[in-house]
Amino acid sequence: MFKRILIANRGEIALRIIRCCREMGIETVVVYSTEDKDSLPVILATKAVCIGPAKSKDSYLNEDVLIETAKLTEADAIHPGYGFLSENAEFAQKCEDNGINFIGPNSFIINGMGDKQNARKLMIKNGVPVVPGSKSLVNTWEEASKIADEIGYPVLIKASAGGGGKGMRKAFSPDEIKSAYETAKAETLAAFNNGDMYVEKLIVNPHHIEVQILADKYGNMVYLGERDCSIQKNNQKLLEESPSWVLDDKLRHEMGQVALKAAKACNYYSAGTVEFVLDEKGNYYFIEMNTRVQVEHPVTEVVTGVDIIKEQIRIAAGMKLSYTQEDIDIEGHGIECRINALTPGTVKFVHFPAGYGVRVESYLYSGCKVSPVYDSMIAKIIVKGQSRLEAIKRMRRALEELVIEGIKTNAEYMHILTFHPSFISGNYNTGFYEKNNEEIMKWLNEGVD
Amino acid sequence: MFKRILIANRGEIALRIIRCCREMGIETVVVYSTEDKDSLPVILATKAVCIGPAKSKDSYLNEDVLIETAKLTEADAIHPGYGFLSENAEFAQKCEDNGINFIGPNSFIINGMGDKQNARKLMIKNGVPVVPGSKSLVNTWEEASKIADEIGYPVLIKASAGGGGKGMRKAFSPDEIKSAYETAKAETLAAFNNGDMYVEKLIVNPHHIEVQILADKYGNMVYLGERDCSIQKNNQKLLEESPSWVLDDKLRHEMGQVALKAAKACNYYSAGTVEFVLDEKGNYYFIEMNTRVQVEHPVTEVVTGVDIIKEQIRIAAGMKLSYTQEDIDIEGHGIECRINALTPGTVKFVHFPAGYGVRVESYLYSGCKVSPVYDSMIAKIIVKGQSRLEAIKRMRRALEELVIEGIKTNAEYMHILTFHPSFISGNYNTGFYEKNNEEIMKWLNEGVD
Repeated sequence: MFKRILIANRGEIALRIIRCCREMGIETVVVYSTEDKDSLPVILATKAVCIGPAKSKDSYLNEDVLIETAKLTEADAIHPGYGFLSENAEFAQKCEDNGINFIGPNSFIINGMGDKQNARKLMIKNGVPVVPGSKSLVNTWEEASKIADEIGYPVLIKASAGGGGKGMRKAFSPDEIKSAYETAKAETLAAFNNGDMYVEKLIVNPHHIEVQILADKYGNMVYLGERDCSIQKNNQKLLEESPSWVLDDKLRHEMGQVALKAAKACNYYSAGTVEFVLDEKGNYYFIEMNTRVQVEHPVTEVVTGVDIIKEQIRIAAGMKLSYTQEDIDIEGHGIECRINALTPGTVKFVHFPAGYGVRVESYLYSGCKVSPVYDSMIAKIIVKGQSRLEAIKRMRRALEELVIEGIKTNAEYMHILTFHPSFISGNYNTGFYEKNNEEIMKWLNEGVD
Repeated sequence: MFKRILIANRGEIALRIIRCCREMGIETVVVYSTEDKDSLPVILATKAVCIGPAKSKDSYLNEDVLIETAKLTEADAIHPGYGFLSENAEFAQKCEDNGINFIGPNSFIINGMGDKQNARKLMIKNGVPVVPGSKSLVNTWEEASKIADEIGYPVLIKASAGGGGKGMRKAFSPDEIKSAYETAKAETLAAFNNGDMYVEKLIVNPHHIEVQILADKYGNMVYLGERDCSIQKNNQKLLEESPSWVLDDKLRHEMGQVALKAAKACNYYSAGTVEFVLDEKGNYYFIEMNTRVQVEHPVTEVVTGVDIIKEQIRIAAGMKLSYTQEDIDIEGHGIECRINALTPGTVKFVHFPAGYGVRVESYLYSGCKVSPVYDSMIAKIIVKGQSRLEAIKRMRRALEELVIEGIKTNAEYMHILTFHPSFISGNYNTGFYEKNNEEIMKWLNEGVD
């Protein structure tokens, strides 16, 4: 087992890893920017090293400084958390080159799954369903039109080199295809100097279903059920739950098996997530694999009783998976609400919910600072109930107890969201936010009769 | 189901009940003394009613005011928590007489089990083992000596009307019996004007093992495993765990069955605890039944997944038990540490541990007052681990995160206790504190090499 892990992250995930390491008897070195000098991870780690100024590129993303710090502090492994360098194959490679264990899969896997077209091809080859689309590059709008006719409208014209929504256009009918193709192509050429284009079927308002997997270096793998993360604002998840209310046991089992197939296809090890979109007819398609731990991993932990971070560290250290698929039972229902800061500032007073079935993951304390520089997520409230309804009621009372003074948060918004009929029904999709936000905001601002 | 429950208690247990009621959609009326006006239960209850000054007898023990408040606020039930009026048969009767549901067993059961000699007789009649002793009153020291010879030394000379250690003397050999008998008798005559005496075998440093049971009004009953509460200071429990490390599955099952037998003997319903002493040879003896919820109930909740307070409320409302014995699985290991205030005062800053496997039950918040008038317990830290060792390590890291400023607490003492070899072994008994306190205090004051 590792003697000392360097944590190349901040906030709640740094804290989550520190807590886990403390329980495992592993020392921690947390790195921090000047902005985070008084943060809870800095207080609770065995050792804390300032590695630069506030801007991420000068601190949390500074690969060479991180490697150097790991070497100086004699850390034998680096945990990247999520975000920052967690899916950076180059950084994973640098760790490997310097004899430091990167807690995650190796750079080859990260690279392979990070290249979306490559991952897509690998999945097709291994019989994992992907969104129907062109098999190869589409060089003209007429070609795009022909493929669109085959797979059916609406379609998505997608740049191979695209990202962050750039080089992507939707076409809902044949008369939109020419303009969509040409605009997308011009955009990707301008942005990435690369005009490679694809056509995919556009799944309108699908369910976002993801399967958590754990795999060790010896080919042992389990899936830990799924999470429904369809409630998103601009692709940022707001609420996640497990199990998903739209899957039956047959589909759950099938998607679990397919997720394992996807993981096997790339010889995966570590904790990982296979993301799918699921349409109204029960068709599901692989979209990508996240080769790291995710923000919403506790939702799975509360229904399976598996400590995902602990397993991830054990796997990185070369240990065998602690579980076989038979050991994995989904029991009860878990929900997570992400609490985001709407304004930065000093948290004058904080009081977290507690008690039966409530778990809080947060780096806040009374008097701490919420920086405008980093991600706005300041807390995760996770509840477990024996039933989904009990979990919902528990989440409501937890949010009612939450007090954060000094900054504005989305806590009340999330509280009201848990009363929305579309959420209560459990059968919502990624269109939830767009469809219901206005109504929730109205209830928030004017009250509910 | 009840519409509104009056909570005749304060502190963490009032909060526990409020949280549960919120999740069940039941309104709460919390009563409070002037001393508790700014307390968390007062803030979080649907309604809060001041019922008198600080002294318990003028507020939390004022039966008539409580009944009157319940009637005025149209509460259809009263939850007494633990302590205060929770085992007061007269109060339960008053509730019944006023058409208010007392959340606990009826006054007849409370009375029957509250009278220790009566309970002992009932247990003997029903084949529940009790500590060997005289079958009836012992009128002279010579008679006591004869019985002591029969059951073997050491023995306990016990007043029937005794309580709080009064009218009780130990005799370790025949030459101590006369003096022990006469001193105990004089004491009980002076204190209670009652000279009825008994002789019992003295179990030296037994394990304190208690079995949690749940029973509804229709004869359905389950036991939820046991708790080992042997770490006590002057009969005040400091740390509890479940399962007990000194029971094997056979004994566990047997004691569970005997606990159900005890509960059946008095037609028990509600949540309750059957307490046993267990000697080194594996002999166990009924000592008493607690006809209320106990401080340490969360230890059982974390290993069974049963919400004991919720079940208790459901049972009181005439609902059937949600579980059969087959549904009850003990999974993992739970430990609770009681955090006590060593000095009263204002809590300037509080920061609780959180994260995976940690549950906190506390009424503290930054800025709150810890009164010298009431019980000194201010928080319960409960952890669950997959193994006992994991639970111990999790408890340590939880206690390391705990910050309470402004008052003195036993948190560091408890932290050091978790490193003591006698605790780690799991095979400790009620002699733990006496035997190890000095060493723990030394480690606390001088540090560990």
